[in-house]
Amino acid sequence: MSVTAPKGFRATGATAGLKQSGKPDVALVVNDGPDATAAGVFTANRVKAAPVLWSQQVLRSGVVRAVVLNSGGANACTGPQGFQDAHRTAEHVAERLTAGSRQPFGAVDVAICSTGLIGERLPMDKLLSGVDAAVRGLARDGGPAAAEAIMTTDTRPKTTVQTGEGFTVGGMAKGAGMLAPALATMLCVLTTDAVADSAVLQLALQKACQVTFDRLDSDGCMSTNDTVLLLASGASGIEPSADELTAIVTAACQDLAQQLLADAEGATKDVTIEVTGAASVPDAVEVGRTIARNNLVKCAFFGNDPNWGRILAAIGTTKAVFDPDALDVAINGVWICRGGAAGDDRGKVDLTGRKIHVRVDLHAGEETATVWTNDLSLGYVHENSAYST
Amino acid sequence: MSVTAPKGFRATGATAGLKQSGKPDVALVVNDGPDATAAGVFTANRVKAAPVLWSQQVLRSGVVRAVVLNSGGANACTGPQGFQDAHRTAEHVAERLTAGSRQPFGAVDVAICSTGLIGERLPMDKLLSGVDAAVRGLARDGGPAAAEAIMTTDTRPKTTVQTGEGFTVGGMAKGAGMLAPALATMLCVLTTDAVADSAVLQLALQKACQVTFDRLDSDGCMSTNDTVLLLASGASGIEPSADELTAIVTAACQDLAQQLLADAEGATKDVTIEVTGAASVPDAVEVGRTIARNNLVKCAFFGNDPNWGRILAAIGTTKAVFDPDALDVAINGVWICRGGAAGDDRGKVDLTGRKIHVRVDLHAGEETATVWTNDLSLGYVHENSAYST
Repeated sequence: MSVTAPKGFRATGATAGLKQSGKPDVALVVNDGPDATAAGVFTANRVKAAPVLWSQQVLRSGVVRAVVLNSGGANACTGPQGFQDAHRTAEHVAERLTAGSRQPFGAVDVAICSTGLIGERLPMDKLLSGVDAAVRGLARDGGPAAAEAIMTTDTRPKTTVQTGEGFTVGGMAKGAGMLAPALATMLCVLTTDAVADSAVLQLALQKACQVTFDRLDSDGCMSTNDTVLLLASGASGIEPSADELTAIVTAACQDLAQQLLADAEGATKDVTIEVTGAASVPDAVEVGRTIARNNLVKCAFFGNDPNWGRILAAIGTTKAVFDPDALDVAINGVWICRGGAAGDDRGKVDLTGRKIHVRVDLHAGEETATVWTNDLSLGYVHENSAYST
Repeated sequence: MSVTAPKGFRATGATAGLKQSGKPDVALVVNDGPDATAAGVFTANRVKAAPVLWSQQVLRSGVVRAVVLNSGGANACTGPQGFQDAHRTAEHVAERLTAGSRQPFGAVDVAICSTGLIGERLPMDKLLSGVDAAVRGLARDGGPAAAEAIMTTDTRPKTTVQTGEGFTVGGMAKGAGMLAPALATMLCVLTTDAVADSAVLQLALQKACQVTFDRLDSDGCMSTNDTVLLLASGASGIEPSADELTAIVTAACQDLAQQLLADAEGATKDVTIEVTGAASVPDAVEVGRTIARNNLVKCAFFGNDPNWGRILAAIGTTKAVFDPDALDVAINGVWICRGGAAGDDRGKVDLTGRKIHVRVDLHAGEETATVWTNDLSLGYVHENSAYST
């Protein structure tokens, strides 16, 4: 049920003709309340798409009544015109949703997410017609349709439903490339019928992203459009503790993050990098991320090659606390490197499955972190060299 | 003539059987003087191979009388045994070279470079036999043979000869993967018959590396074995100014760097990234390097796709001074992005050749820097997923 699993939300997907494939490309999520509190986390990229700049402004009030999302165009690097297009879209959504309503709201309550090619303006006539169709199609069970309409190179929609005591968190996400730190890919809308003010929501969302989407690093590339939104309707009447809300939101993010990982462009391996014995969590994250981004390591995984030497060479480029002669590395449970040199027989490592688990023990402290990545495959290069041509 | 172009040097290549291919795998370069001053620059990787740790000690005295290099094994991540192996090799070289000599020298005057797979000890019996063969084969015209013996995945040897006023700089290098910053790849031995003390040599070498090898970033991966050595025999009797020496050494490094770029593993494009209008040189280098390392940008080049949006997304992840709405990007002379948005027609960009020139104007100052990289190709993934298996 995706974003419509919690009470108080309607959603839908529609076809505006933005995608050449003719598949659905506009999604709409509406919060029918009674509350309309919201939180957002956005790309750390300084080159931000127009919808990101727009939505950041919207989130300042802590209120979001609707989110419109489109695939088939990122509206990034489109200058002042692109920002005007975002504004106009939000206005159009607000007008259509509140026509004849007793509680009219304006563009400032409508967040926007876009995904697709960078550098081209959206065809506004098509987009606004698509919005009209989406408004007409809004339904209490429209979550799956919305999740489908935000797909780009995704091969399947990503949705989640997590249940707390008396409240529910639902979500959808898209993203299959540009999975990178300080936000992986991507567009994600989470909804909940919990009662929570926007400050509580914001903290819960940030904490959840920090250990889920932020630790996903498929190809080291950071998008201009990354957006994660959390909308609360309060329709359950239940106000969970901040900790409980954070736990359920984190579970939803983790579920979606793993779905993104499993569907990353061209990937043939899902790689979990667990760093233990670190002097600090930032050290552990740096080591994990550096391994995750090393093209030679990633190529080795694609080739089913337990090349621990490349892992050590990657670790050596970090500033983390460690002694090179104390490093231990296990791949799929075999301690193939001990004390910075060859350990158990590399022939014992079975890499034939899709899952690869790398464990690095820095022997420098007690902290740990886990980062997720994919291999670097022929399919990745093929898909990303042909994307826009 | 490579490293034997300057007066006072002999060299050779020999076959020790370290490589499965049966090709030459041991090179020896000997400085016959009268001087034996030297300088060295080594990998910034904290996981350093045994020969790097050894050679760093050797260079402390500023004297190097011989360099022995081997392909077919990196002697990296081999623990204390690996270091002992390096020591023993240097001792063996010194003994063989000074047998019956009136000017005997010891292991501390012999630098070592190794390249090949990480994590396995070298077969010392084979290596030392190869050293014996190399000593017997030393010749005044042995430079090309030495350059051939250090090749790994290189498809051709890399050599250079540069001429100053009354003195010569010769050089050889190997490296086709792990081309990365703070030293690209690789092994490189430079020789000169100029008269120069080791402090002058060291400064000249560091300045030269900084704008050549350090700006080459083929795949963002930093090796455990990177070594650049500069040996001076003084045999020309000419003592150039520090500036003149630096200029000729830089020319030699730049010539070799471009040969490395042109022979990078699997690459189909040589990409020059020129960043102008930067507030500082470090800003310009950071922007250039970040673009050079972005897998999506590199895949686009492989696909002949002038995808400037990915370039902007890469720039946006840097801390350099710039206004996103002021960024201009040209690809092969076409200003395809102006003011952070679409500029001239992308159809005008011709990417069919091997050379790609990217120019980024940050409009934030007067500083510039150039970084060189390659595309990310199917060939790169293929070669690096099959290397050790």
